[in-house]
Amino acid sequence: MTDLLTAPPVRGFARVEFEHRTAQLQQRMAAQNIDAVFFSTEPEFRYFSGFKSQFWESPTRPWFLVVPADGLPIAVVPEIGVAGFEQTCLEEVRSWPSPRPADDGISLLANTLAEVSKRHRRIGAMLGPETHLRMPAANFADLQQRLGQHQMVDISLAVREIRSVKSAAEIEKIRFACQVTAAGFEYLRNHLRIGMTEREACKLMHLEMLRLGADSCPYLISASGQGGYDNIIMGPTDRQLAAGDLLIIDTGVNFDGYFSDFDRNYAFGSADQASTSAYEAVYRSTEAGLEIAAPGRTTGDVWQAMWSVLEQAGALGNDVGRMGHGLGMQLTEWPSNVEGGDVVLKPGMILTLEPGMTFAPGKMMVHEENIVITENGCELLHQRAWESMPVIEH
Amino acid sequence: MTDLLTAPPVRGFARVEFEHRTAQLQQRMAAQNIDAVFFSTEPEFRYFSGFKSQFWESPTRPWFLVVPADGLPIAVVPEIGVAGFEQTCLEEVRSWPSPRPADDGISLLANTLAEVSKRHRRIGAMLGPETHLRMPAANFADLQQRLGQHQMVDISLAVREIRSVKSAAEIEKIRFACQVTAAGFEYLRNHLRIGMTEREACKLMHLEMLRLGADSCPYLISASGQGGYDNIIMGPTDRQLAAGDLLIIDTGVNFDGYFSDFDRNYAFGSADQASTSAYEAVYRSTEAGLEIAAPGRTTGDVWQAMWSVLEQAGALGNDVGRMGHGLGMQLTEWPSNVEGGDVVLKPGMILTLEPGMTFAPGKMMVHEENIVITENGCELLHQRAWESMPVIEH
Repeated sequence: MTDLLTAPPVRGFARVEFEHRTAQLQQRMAAQNIDAVFFSTEPEFRYFSGFKSQFWESPTRPWFLVVPADGLPIAVVPEIGVAGFEQTCLEEVRSWPSPRPADDGISLLANTLAEVSKRHRRIGAMLGPETHLRMPAANFADLQQRLGQHQMVDISLAVREIRSVKSAAEIEKIRFACQVTAAGFEYLRNHLRIGMTEREACKLMHLEMLRLGADSCPYLISASGQGGYDNIIMGPTDRQLAAGDLLIIDTGVNFDGYFSDFDRNYAFGSADQASTSAYEAVYRSTEAGLEIAAPGRTTGDVWQAMWSVLEQAGALGNDVGRMGHGLGMQLTEWPSNVEGGDVVLKPGMILTLEPGMTFAPGKMMVHEENIVITENGCELLHQRAWESMPVIEH
Repeated sequence: MTDLLTAPPVRGFARVEFEHRTAQLQQRMAAQNIDAVFFSTEPEFRYFSGFKSQFWESPTRPWFLVVPADGLPIAVVPEIGVAGFEQTCLEEVRSWPSPRPADDGISLLANTLAEVSKRHRRIGAMLGPETHLRMPAANFADLQQRLGQHQMVDISLAVREIRSVKSAAEIEKIRFACQVTAAGFEYLRNHLRIGMTEREACKLMHLEMLRLGADSCPYLISASGQGGYDNIIMGPTDRQLAAGDLLIIDTGVNFDGYFSDFDRNYAFGSADQASTSAYEAVYRSTEAGLEIAAPGRTTGDVWQAMWSVLEQAGALGNDVGRMGHGLGMQLTEWPSNVEGGDVVLKPGMILTLEPGMTFAPGKMMVHEENIVITENGCELLHQRAWESMPVIEH
């Protein structure tokens, strides 16, 4: 396996990377007459501040980052978090003793926003698709009331565009996560056995990917069944793998805050004609995606190229709703590869190609690979799926 | 280590457990004239439906659960999720092809809510402290507009009270997660070495806890420094552990959807007088918490008992904001052990006791244990912390 792995990249980012991110946002803010933006969710907070902590796992306390029109972002955070900002490039950290349900940072956030948004009185917030506010809805209503003289506008479209183009350092982190994942699937190919449970198979892979250098593995699902599986978001279960089964494992590991996200399929005992054909169809579909993904093409072009192959192969449908998506600080990011998708691909975008189809009633076949858009086309970030379905014989 | 571990409990829950949960909520709804409640976040969705999937890691698609005044909850979910409901006790699953940014389930949710809330036209939602809505804020505004003839009221206080009292089956899952964690700390005591990095120490423990039966370990932080550490929410870093260091590791592992959450401290080479005294103080503080935690006592009583010990020991302060909290499906849950806290403890509540103090400028000492409130007092869910600080000698 080890020949699939390069050394892990350096952790963290150079200061200039954060300066560039903030400058891009401030440029978009200026174009929209927005004086300040606030963030409440982990990926955006980390992207613009460099603050990286597992403490977001605790839902109790809200955290806020305020980006003014000029200068460095300002952290508005619970007291417990202040010490963590010594490691960031931020200079101003405002805090309150939290938890304090009666006013958990809302007056402090409102005052900070009012202070830095006097010009146009327009404040950007993450309000649009694929976002949420990580704060009580009652507190957001309170914030809007406190800032009654200001207009709250959606900044999520700008933020997702900025985040979708990855820097060289970001790409290297994702590439490493992808290589660890590919090595994990290769390990599994050599260690899966008939009679194992799905859960045992996933645990084997989980342990191996941590040993190989993943920091964590927040997503590791499996589905299996005789001649096919009927979902790709549940499991693992205690179902024992038997001859005649198909198994899919889909996983996303994290390295230094960046994800991989792809899957692999295994047959047990032998593979029947229908599943072999389905495997070949999604493999060829991915080939079509790899061929077309390039700067200037759209997410709809990628979808069309992949779906044409599946349609010709007799696909009965696809209830995943898309065939791949952005990838980075989150397991799934904007954009989606959908029918008619009009997002134009740019160098530095990371995408998953995820052709999938129902090839018989209640039987799905899904492949997935992770790519980066380059100047001329795209590049796979890890070893390609096996050209034919691996069969676990014992 | 293995003598610290009992066998893992059975996964999942009996159907009657979900019926009881829903009945409790419907009782509270009736008392408030609420016709229907909707949930958008994973813990509540899982608590009232039994639907358990790692797919929540993907932020793209919203998921909704509607609980009517009578009868079973109704799932309103993306098509990709439908197959997963075969394993639940729900009978009605409504779905839409997602992602569909123009209407990602909002019209379907609005129609479903309108259909089941004709009597009082009052709809409960999670709006209060320690909650958030996992849906775009713009979509929530749209939902409120579509339901303009209805009143949206906060149901979070009722939900947190219901969830805070755990069933026997829930307690056994948490107990197992706690026992795995305690065994992980014991393993670390035998395997830590001077010269290891924090990251290596955490990885060792991570792997061991997965081997011992944890499903995942979403929280595993560390902090270290000469004679003390200055935070408990960052790390692990690549800092090498040296003689004279104190190391804290705080972790939460997950078993079948339920968390542990506690920490342990280790000295390297030798422990100086100040840190030894601080360790003894927080150990005695935890003893005071264990003694007082019982049905009828309040979270403020627990705080007071623990803080008195720390104050007498010369604590300079505590910037954690509380000394323990609820625990269960989330790493931290309501209630908090705070000064003046008036939440009355009940049998079945799971709490962490987490006394912590700054014992010298920039130096903290924090202990944590997990308990369940019993009929007469409380019970530790795992092996107690070592009475004196372990010293890693080589």
